[in-house]
Amino acid sequence: MKFRRSERLIDMTHYLLDHPRQLVPLTFFAERYSSAKSSISEDLAIVKETFEQRGIGTLQTVPGAAGGVKFFVKVSKEEARPFVKELCELIAESERLLPGGYLYMTDILGNPQVVQNAGRIIASAYAETKIDVVMTIATKGIPLAYAVASQLNVPVIIVRRDSKVTEGPTVSINYVSGSTKRIQTMVLSKRSIKQESHVLIVDDFMKAGGTVMGMISMLEEFNAHVAGIAVLVEAEKTEERLVDDYLSLVKLSDVNVKEKKINVHEGNYFTK
Amino acid sequence: MKFRRSERLIDMTHYLLDHPRQLVPLTFFAERYSSAKSSISEDLAIVKETFEQRGIGTLQTVPGAAGGVKFFVKVSKEEARPFVKELCELIAESERLLPGGYLYMTDILGNPQVVQNAGRIIASAYAETKIDVVMTIATKGIPLAYAVASQLNVPVIIVRRDSKVTEGPTVSINYVSGSTKRIQTMVLSKRSIKQESHVLIVDDFMKAGGTVMGMISMLEEFNAHVAGIAVLVEAEKTEERLVDDYLSLVKLSDVNVKEKKINVHEGNYFTK
Repeated sequence: MKFRRSERLIDMTHYLLDHPRQLVPLTFFAERYSSAKSSISEDLAIVKETFEQRGIGTLQTVPGAAGGVKFFVKVSKEEARPFVKELCELIAESERLLPGGYLYMTDILGNPQVVQNAGRIIASAYAETKIDVVMTIATKGIPLAYAVASQLNVPVIIVRRDSKVTEGPTVSINYVSGSTKRIQTMVLSKRSIKQESHVLIVDDFMKAGGTVMGMISMLEEFNAHVAGIAVLVEAEKTEERLVDDYLSLVKLSDVNVKEKKINVHEGNYFTK
Repeated sequence: MKFRRSERLIDMTHYLLDHPRQLVPLTFFAERYSSAKSSISEDLAIVKETFEQRGIGTLQTVPGAAGGVKFFVKVSKEEARPFVKELCELIAESERLLPGGYLYMTDILGNPQVVQNAGRIIASAYAETKIDVVMTIATKGIPLAYAVASQLNVPVIIVRRDSKVTEGPTVSINYVSGSTKRIQTMVLSKRSIKQESHVLIVDDFMKAGGTVMGMISMLEEFNAHVAGIAVLVEAEKTEERLVDDYLSLVKLSDVNVKEKKINVHEGNYFTK
């Protein structure tokens, strides 16, 4: 059965979106649609052009006998800006204020449209970086980490506060929380990361960066490399930032509990 | 600027996949592509046909002035079968066996391709059910719950074992773990569920069902309704199952630690 071009384009779009950063040989599509490779090449040129024009992403063509195409999510800063602006407004809502100047963000971190968009922007910033795995710490950042991981097509691993029998043997480390200076423990299953892996650390919130530093120490125990650090929100006013090289989508500059004001700006994603 | 049909089809496919269960008015597409509504209708007919033929999902047309289209993910049992078979083989690997007959599944639950496919199958089973929110309990099931929620286009909320300052006021309940008979606590942020919400409970693993029963009790505290219960894996050999009406993709019938054998079958998803 032969497929019309329109059908091929629709199915190809779905297939490529579903398999980011994965090399798909031209022959795969040629067989899938019982079509000539030359038609498939034409199709892919149309898909690539539309993806780029509409800010969906890009296709990379790998030439040669073992060649094919790879889809990468690609969000430009101009495309990211309206979403981040909306996110800032969402975070600045005064009802979010909790005693102690903490912010309630659980609803934002559980909203699939927000998480997916944020995940796309972060994944896009690391599209050309070698990343084998995305790492986060339980609990609130997990949906975001998973959204980033699925766009990068790599597994997500979750550091926990306590060990569980279903994790098998674990590595446990102590770390000092940057803002409260308390000693805490984090635990990671020994099987979860291969030696020498390149790891993107993703979290929902970073204050002084103690938890992120903890995750970096954890990676040292696995002889793994930090490929990047990305957070949805960073708190700006911290005496001493423990982590330098990171990406943030949103910056929290001032939380005034008395006046119920939350000051939120674009993160360093736009200036990096 | 006018768009060619091929470009429209590609962008529409992306847009619809990205906005499941959301009514998209025809006028939205007509304006987006500066095209006549009649052309958009023709486009949508092609998209619908291809989505259905390729097992991607379906489009529902809502007629009238306030009408439009809605995309639903729709996986048939025949399409689900090869994936579930693969999943069974993956779970049956003898290296997963941990002391006490527990299984290491963290890698499976962190693999985006597996999680996405499982999420699609579960979401598809509840495509026509009224669901306002997906609920899970920390930690391992969160990526799956998020995958289901994003296909259903509803928020995901996470029940925790302990309360955190960033959750604001919480509701806490005690429950009895079905298999170990221990009393445990679970906590949910008061803001997270609206009264009378319809909730789909998603978890990675169910033994006797004590944790799921706990989540059901929690929902009673919020005057919320259980719209469904779905688990990736159920353990078959339990003296007494506390929960009756649930969906499972995979059934674990026997774990023999001595002979290092794990018996895994299709879950009740296929017989329901």
